Amino acid sequence: MSESGPLDPFVSPRFGQIATFLRLPHVRDPKGLDVALIGIPFDGGSSYRTGARFGPREIRVQSALIRPYHPVLKVAPFERLRVADYGDIDVVPTSIERTYALIETEIGHLLGHGVRPIAVGGDHSISLPILRAMARQHGPVALIHFDAHTDTWDEYLGSKLYHGSMFRRAVEEGLLDTRHTIQLGIRGPLYSSRDFDFQAEHGMEVIPIGSIKEQGSGWVGERFARLAGRKVYCSFDVDVMDPAYAPATGTPEVGGLTSFEALTLVRALRGLDIVGFDLVEVSPPYDGPGQITSLLAANLLFEFISLLGLRSLQ
Amino acid sequence: MSESGPLDPFVSPRFGQIATFLRLPHVRDPKGLDVALIGIPFDGGSSYRTGARFGPREIRVQSALIRPYHPVLKVAPFERLRVADYGDIDVVPTSIERTYALIETEIGHLLGHGVRPIAVGGDHSISLPILRAMARQHGPVALIHFDAHTDTWDEYLGSKLYHGSMFRRAVEEGLLDTRHTIQLGIRGPLYSSRDFDFQAEHGMEVIPIGSIKEQGSGWVGERFARLAGRKVYCSFDVDVMDPAYAPATGTPEVGGLTSFEALTLVRALRGLDIVGFDLVEVSPPYDGPGQITSLLAANLLFEFISLLGLRSLQ
Amino acid sequence: MSESGPLDPFVSPRFGQIATFLRLPHVRDPKGLDVALIGIPFDGGSSYRTGARFGPREIRVQSALIRPYHPVLKVAPFERLRVADYGDIDVVPTSIERTYALIETEIGHLLGHGVRPIAVGGDHSISLPILRAMARQHGPVALIHFDAHTDTWDEYLGSKLYHGSMFRRAVEEGLLDTRHTIQLGIRGPLYSSRDFDFQAEHGMEVIPIGSIKEQGSGWVGERFARLAGRKVYCSFDVDVMDPAYAPATGTPEVGGLTSFEALTLVRALRGLDIVGFDLVEVSPPYDGPGQITSLLAANLLFEFISLLGLRSLQ
Amino acid sequence: MSESGPLDPFVSPRFGQIATFLRLPHVRDPKGLDVALIGIPFDGGSSYRTGARFGPREIRVQSALIRPYHPVLKVAPFERLRVADYGDIDVVPTSIERTYALIETEIGHLLGHGVRPIAVGGDHSISLPILRAMARQHGPVALIHFDAHTDTWDEYLGSKLYHGSMFRRAVEEGLLDTRHTIQLGIRGPLYSSRDFDFQAEHGMEVIPIGSIKEQGSGWVGERFARLAGRKVYCSFDVDVMDPAYAPATGTPEVGGLTSFEALTLVRALRGLDIVGFDLVEVSPPYDGPGQITSLLAANLLFEFISLLGLRSLQ
Amino acid sequence: MSESGPLDPFVSPRFGQIATFLRLPHVRDPKGLDVALIGIPFDGGSSYRTGARFGPREIRVQSALIRPYHPVLKVAPFERLRVADYGDIDVVPTSIERTYALIETEIGHLLGHGVRPIAVGGDHSISLPILRAMARQHGPVALIHFDAHTDTWDEYLGSKLYHGSMFRRAVEEGLLDTRHTIQLGIRGPLYSSRDFDFQAEHGMEVIPIGSIKEQGSGWVGERFARLAGRKVYCSFDVDVMDPAYAPATGTPEVGGLTSFEALTLVRALRGLDIVGFDLVEVSPPYDGPGQITSLLAANLLFEFISLLGLRSLQ
Amino acid sequence: MSESGPLDPFVSPRFGQIATFLRLPHVRDPKGLDVALIGIPFDGGSSYRTGARFGPREIRVQSALIRPYHPVLKVAPFERLRVADYGDIDVVPTSIERTYALIETEIGHLLGHGVRPIAVGGDHSISLPILRAMARQHGPVALIHFDAHTDTWDEYLGSKLYHGSMFRRAVEEGLLDTRHTIQLGIRGPLYSSRDFDFQAEHGMEVIPIGSIKEQGSGWVGERFARLAGRKVYCSFDVDVMDPAYAPATGTPEVGGLTSFEALTLVRALRGLDIVGFDLVEVSPPYDGPGQITSLLAANLLFEFISLLGLRSLQ
Repeated sequence: MSESGPLDPFVSPRFGQIATFLRLPHVRDPKGLDVALIGIPFDGGSSYRTGARFGPREIRVQSALIRPYHPVLKVAPFERLRVADYGDIDVVPTSIERTYALIETEIGHLLGHGVRPIAVGGDHSISLPILRAMARQHGPVALIHFDAHTDTWDEYLGSKLYHGSMFRRAVEEGLLDTRHTIQLGIRGPLYSSRDFDFQAEHGMEVIPIGSIKEQGSGWVGERFARLAGRKVYCSFDVDVMDPAYAPATGTPEVGGLTSFEALTLVRALRGLDIVGFDLVEVSPPYDGPGQITSLLAANLLFEFISLLGLRSLQ
Repeated sequence: MSESGPLDPFVSPRFGQIATFLRLPHVRDPKGLDVALIGIPFDGGSSYRTGARFGPREIRVQSALIRPYHPVLKVAPFERLRVADYGDIDVVPTSIERTYALIETEIGHLLGHGVRPIAVGGDHSISLPILRAMARQHGPVALIHFDAHTDTWDEYLGSKLYHGSMFRRAVEEGLLDTRHTIQLGIRGPLYSSRDFDFQAEHGMEVIPIGSIKEQGSGWVGERFARLAGRKVYCSFDVDVMDPAYAPATGTPEVGGLTSFEALTLVRALRGLDIVGFDLVEVSPPYDGPGQITSLLAANLLFEFISLLGLRSLQ
Repeated sequence: MSESGPLDPFVSPRFGQIATFLRLPHVRDPKGLDVALIGIPFDGGSSYRTGARFGPREIRVQSALIRPYHPVLKVAPFERLRVADYGDIDVVPTSIERTYALIETEIGHLLGHGVRPIAVGGDHSISLPILRAMARQHGPVALIHFDAHTDTWDEYLGSKLYHGSMFRRAVEEGLLDTRHTIQLGIRGPLYSSRDFDFQAEHGMEVIPIGSIKEQGSGWVGERFARLAGRKVYCSFDVDVMDPAYAPATGTPEVGGLTSFEALTLVRALRGLDIVGFDLVEVSPPYDGPGQITSLLAANLLFEFISLLGLRSLQ
Repeated sequence: MSESGPLDPFVSPRFGQIATFLRLPHVRDPKGLDVALIGIPFDGGSSYRTGARFGPREIRVQSALIRPYHPVLKVAPFERLRVADYGDIDVVPTSIERTYALIETEIGHLLGHGVRPIAVGGDHSISLPILRAMARQHGPVALIHFDAHTDTWDEYLGSKLYHGSMFRRAVEEGLLDTRHTIQLGIRGPLYSSRDFDFQAEHGMEVIPIGSIKEQGSGWVGERFARLAGRKVYCSFDVDVMDPAYAPATGTPEVGGLTSFEALTLVRALRGLDIVGFDLVEVSPPYDGPGQITSLLAANLLFEFISLLGLRSLQ
Repeated sequence: MSESGPLDPFVSPRFGQIATFLRLPHVRDPKGLDVALIGIPFDGGSSYRTGARFGPREIRVQSALIRPYHPVLKVAPFERLRVADYGDIDVVPTSIERTYALIETEIGHLLGHGVRPIAVGGDHSISLPILRAMARQHGPVALIHFDAHTDTWDEYLGSKLYHGSMFRRAVEEGLLDTRHTIQLGIRGPLYSSRDFDFQAEHGMEVIPIGSIKEQGSGWVGERFARLAGRKVYCSFDVDVMDPAYAPATGTPEVGGLTSFEALTLVRALRGLDIVGFDLVEVSPPYDGPGQITSLLAANLLFEFISLLGLRSLQ
Repeated sequence: MSESGPLDPFVSPRFGQIATFLRLPHVRDPKGLDVALIGIPFDGGSSYRTGARFGPREIRVQSALIRPYHPVLKVAPFERLRVADYGDIDVVPTSIERTYALIETEIGHLLGHGVRPIAVGGDHSISLPILRAMARQHGPVALIHFDAHTDTWDEYLGSKLYHGSMFRRAVEEGLLDTRHTIQLGIRGPLYSSRDFDFQAEHGMEVIPIGSIKEQGSGWVGERFARLAGRKVYCSFDVDVMDPAYAPATGTPEVGGLTSFEALTLVRALRGLDIVGFDLVEVSPPYDGPGQITSLLAANLLFEFISLLGLRSLQ
């Protein structure tokens, strides 16, 4: 199966050739794929800094540096799984509603062929149509949500759809198994003391950043473990990171995760049955020349693939 | 009237105090104002690079450097006119339709009080609701449109409203006096040889960049002169500039104006009865640390004010 | 009292309107204010990188993202306190002496009206005239000083006044209660082994960075607790942060605080009677496009306000 | 033939999908191609700033903005020619000799199939192996060389091969028809008054920047016209541009071309039988966030393709 | 005399070794020197953007690219003149008065040894003490002053000394031969219609940017020619350039010179007896990664040296 | 011996004068030197991002901020040791082989005079010729190697010499005492599960990043202690740092060291007999305007010097 893996850097130097995710082949046909990396360059749901529409493009560029073997998880995922860069969904930048329809259709198409999607945003609003497709395929899914924000606000300037409301919508639409939903990394000033009422009402677990810093990732891993055996969707908003590690994001919050913590927490997902991932809110215009946010995002994609590869071993 | 002018830099250094346009007072009441600088931080109509929502904020910052007397036009506009920073229109980033309604209302409000608005975008899509308000007040207006693009495409991914179609919409809605419309600085690859058919059909004059470079600004001034005596609206898309002079814009086109050319062409508007201006498509995240695009924009705002000040002398 | 709080982002999007600190109203009249955020854009005391004169302007811009409720301290400060952006002091960039006089007068004016000032620099030299005003109002004050450097050097190229000597001057002038002075975060190469002699002589406590990293913030909080019941002034030099978290500062030192540590340490001030704050040495030209230093500074301003809000509950 | 053209931006927004040159299909089989855009990401021949190895990647990204019709040359090249992104040559960054062999082979392969190559560097040293392949196919070729430098120095620190010597090597190897070689845009300090002796000796025409600025592009076009009827190779070093227009290059020289001048001069090539192009010395790390150098380069690629398209009409 | 020239790039690559101006030897002894490049890293006179204190350092770095022969002026200056990097004057950042004394002394010291100084700022305020030293040595000197601003304002926030007043001070102190003073490139908004009264009163010639653009550099050269036979001092403020060409400066003004124009105008100084030069207001923090402002400045230094070399031939 | 130390910032401000390492004197004669800081600006061995050739230049610039006393190690190294900036080795950018010869000769020359070299790269490939010179002088040396990568790959695109293979070469050539070799900070995706076989075979100790984070620096210090009494060479690749702390490097890996951790680990070398250091892979074009990577590198140079100063006390 190795022919489907990344270009070999000992033959083709990593700064060369057309930039696909992890230098994987570009394949638009879902048949035979196990995992599809799919770009969703939509930033029309952003309330503050835009630019996430260029996320997939820059993450493709920065992912050229990734090598194929994971020494901590001890897995060579491309030997186990057929993974491809599926290209992007052609979003409609001026219409969140029509973009949602396109996303739901395309993700549903992948799920229908048994492909596990790893969606690369774009702003976080893209998670809602993905969850709609997921729920149609799997029923309500458990959720692990890395973020500085809960994204369960109700509306924004009269819009029900934006990058701060999609998990409320998802709950309202019955897409989530809220008793098996964990939101972690939450922090920053809020609008009021009632901002967590929705979580309490629906039995969603919130792990604020302070608990992670104080209890450690082992403890968080134990919290994750209660989702074992369920279909879990994982949504990773890069603003869960501290701005020092991920300056290029739409609504940065200080006091966040380090990259070592993020890697450790993601690896703590091992053992779960993850039906899909998204990685959102990378806005490249706000990065420095080292593009460290996209580089981190690229590494997280490899972590996600490795988790799926590990799962395939079981 | 001097109390209404900019803060005096010999009392208050220019790097200090809250940044308003040209360090003018912030006044939200249109009564008694002659000219209102008004920010419209909307970039939901952008087809490529976003970020113009931060245009008003950065142009305010860079405008701190402007002094109050225009030595070429020989006018001290703030001695003639009461000019203020009116603040921004509270746009809805997720809805172009609702944003349009808000813009049209607010500009209409200003026009109703006899205020000449200078709108600071935001992407170019904001010109359409301004023109709607203009036409309601003045009937169809003549137009001078600085741009690399004609912005008369029909639709974009199914949307009739975006930053490339508003002048077609304006013509369709009867807002423009198309026989007295001049689009200048036009250049760059097009979609087809038919891209100028709309202009031909409606009698709109197109001055491509090559004609400006070869014939000079004096010749362009003569073209402008045929609009004398009419109500003229002036829309200035910063991408009419060469990217060397204005890198921070949504859809840059090489081969454009230098800043000296731009200043000269804008000064060639003297004598016209300009009922309003907009300056659009400054996207600060794409500028370098010198923020030269916003600096140029700030200077153009002073040119616009000076033209109005000169007019008030007549 | 809510009318005095920040603009509501659900009505007015956060990227819009004139940038004041935390989108608060601009009020120049101290009457009725509890807390005044006041910019002091002076960088004439800098020994290395300049640019801090643009600190207040950029921190205003980046503070647009702050929400009004503090979920860790559990306080909604704008419901308890009337807080405003007081604007800037009009400094004299070419004269530290005349700038000092202006600062002392203006801060004294605020204190005379019972307003607690939060000063935003500017370089660190501005702390001295603030302390002069403080001591005139309150007598010698206790001090908590976050910094990489002690700033108790004697003179610089013949100048007694610069951003490395003001705490020595403050001690000499009797402005500080030195037995209740804590300097924390101190690190980096020094000029000689005698650099801490001044502290020893005056009974000032120095907590080097190593102690913070090893003993933790709980331990630091205990050190702070011995200042309970006194009037405490808090000076926060952003170079206490590691350059990864705050690259945009005048004299960066590696090996500093993370943003989570900084937030935790600032929150450890709860319970103290803080009569004023300053936040200094943010030099925006040295930041990347994400402007993470100013973003952190803006968050610290909210922490300071929240501490005052909490205090008002007692 | 339209199916072979760029992705349609009215279906697929330009910020989306995998970035190929001008959003063209990626085709590695030369059969049936008329023109191949081929990246050569080698910067091992650079004497000063490196980074040109990332040129092809960034130019691909910035080329997304190009539309398909050329309104000045009045040609829709993709309707006339089958053009593709051929991908990159897998260079060896540590060996200029082995890289040269790979380039010569691959370009020869394209020429053998009748494909006209447009090579995208990489540093300028890549022109030599291209010329070797050209001469093998066509015999000595005429040359039009846009550059600030003549690149006919002899050696560099003992190396005969680097980005300042390849046209001397080409002459020595008999690859060029030196009597029909024009080097234009030449400027900047030199090593000695003898630096043009080589040109004089071989009958190569040098047009310094001053002559272009004073005589105009029409005059330059006349100089080009004497190459009519010959096989002409065109090499475009982006440092022929002024650094204001192309800051991101290896050895920038002030006082160069504006982008309008460059476009006009390139269009003056019409009528010549150009057998291949290269565009070299774009070093993206030295650009600002607007990436104006790569944007200009992308536009030049479209100019080259349009010239070939025009030629195909004859 | 070649041993005193720049390091040979064919032996020592230009990106290597300690960065001195033009890779010249660092010599602190004026004996035997013809020309001294001397840094004056003072920015305490800046009214807006600071950072010019880092000008000498960055110009040294960017000057590594300069080669030793001037093909337009046809001179190899380092074969004619002994030129060195004299290092910097140790300024006092907190005191303009004490810095002035240090500058006047050091420049006087050089002049006393018959060395022609080329001073590299720093902000423009440094010209005054240089002119004091010049006048002491030569009597009142003629002046050619490249700038966007006349710098003859009277005072600033109570300070007589800052970067906008030094030529008024110089006139008042009798340092200038005002009838043989030319200020060129002047432009931008002013404070009032009286801003040129001082020039009129003292017979100083002002050439606004418009005249340069319209009349051309040949005409300017004729204006310069009337200074022949006199001792001329030349002060070059980099803000005479358009911000596209020199974004990194303290008070940028749009509509300025291109680099080709600047080079041509400087070369038009040939034939004059120039007793010293300064190049000021390069503020590196405001440049992009290409550092084009410092690169231009470095080239201007070579132009100045070449003019002196040419003069030595006479 | 103090005359040989850094320039005194209380006499000469730190932003001034020609930038040498730590503002030390530039001395090219090894006689009498104890420690030589030597730049090796070679990046021809880079497999990904180039630009490390500008490392020495920028690290010199950023090192201006360092003061002379180390308060944690309690040593004033410049009072104990004669330390100088030796300048750079004149590398050959187009030939790794010839560059290696030059490096080996020059380092051997220093060692022959009893000077301990601190080499500043450049890419990591420069360590091999340094180790050759070391082994010739001292026999096989123990090694402490800070890095994200083991750099023991075999070859790259047919080259045995590049920045990923030099420690394999060193082992093959018998330059290392492999039983006393420690590689620490290792992390990131690998090529296969066999990537550590070489280490196992040769008894080289690998400390992955996870062990450092979990066991702490005290534990690492104990690992170092087993090298006591041997000649130890220390190679520090800046990519051992997390990209948040050192974005400007050739092959960044997320999840690395913080600056506090790095300082602590380097200080844990105290007591070892270190015969030389290198600090490599700083690539300034990839840093933001704060240049935090070079600033960190400069601080590490001071740590290295301090360790040698401490050793000299014994």
